[in-house]
Amino acid sequence: MIKVNEYYNGKVKSLGNILDGVPFTVGIIEPGEYTFSTEKEEHMNITYGEMEVKLPGEENFKKFKAGEKFIIPPKKSFTVKIEKPVSYVCEYK
Amino acid sequence: MIKVNEYYNGKVKSLGNILDGVPFTVGIIEPGEYTFSTEKEEHMNITYGEMEVKLPGEENFKKFKAGEKFIIPPKKSFTVKIEKPVSYVCEYK
Repeated sequence: MIKVNEYYNGKVKSLGNILDGVPFTVGIIEPGEYTFSTEKEEHMNITYGEMEVKLPGEENFKKFKAGEKFIIPPKKSFTVKIEKPVSYVCEYK
Repeated sequence: MIKVNEYYNGKVKSLGNILDGVPFTVGIIEPGEYTFSTEKEEHMNITYGEMEVKLPGEENFKKFKAGEKFIIPPKKSFTVKIEKPVSYVCEYK
């Protein structure tokens, strides 16, 4: 069963499933600035385009492009700044 | 506007958008065997998991894993065989 998720009035959408016991989502984010909170540790892999990310505890945004990844610890929040549509795969560990 | 697409009774779902004039989708495919037809040239990038693919004109399936890609010419069909959920980014050129 592939779950469809929608956030921020549909400017962020994702599809969710499970592979080998690990929940994952694939999503697209449209231009804008968004803050997300984690429950588990999240491994964010950029798969198309690029985004700027302010990681927990950081003061500045850092750019991540397709093929790059970042990890957010559980129970933290992070902010992304998007100029053009970008896609990701996120693993929840 | 992020479009949500659904095929094969929801066992294949994708999200669609456009980056720099190039339409792209990100999707998840659940276990099964599916045939798709192309309109434009499609660049399929596997982003999570793996799939077996029978490309147009080929007799055998070949395995593609996360980080690998294959290209299908326009107006052709190809068949994928999926054992566990897999995700992809597809560019329509």
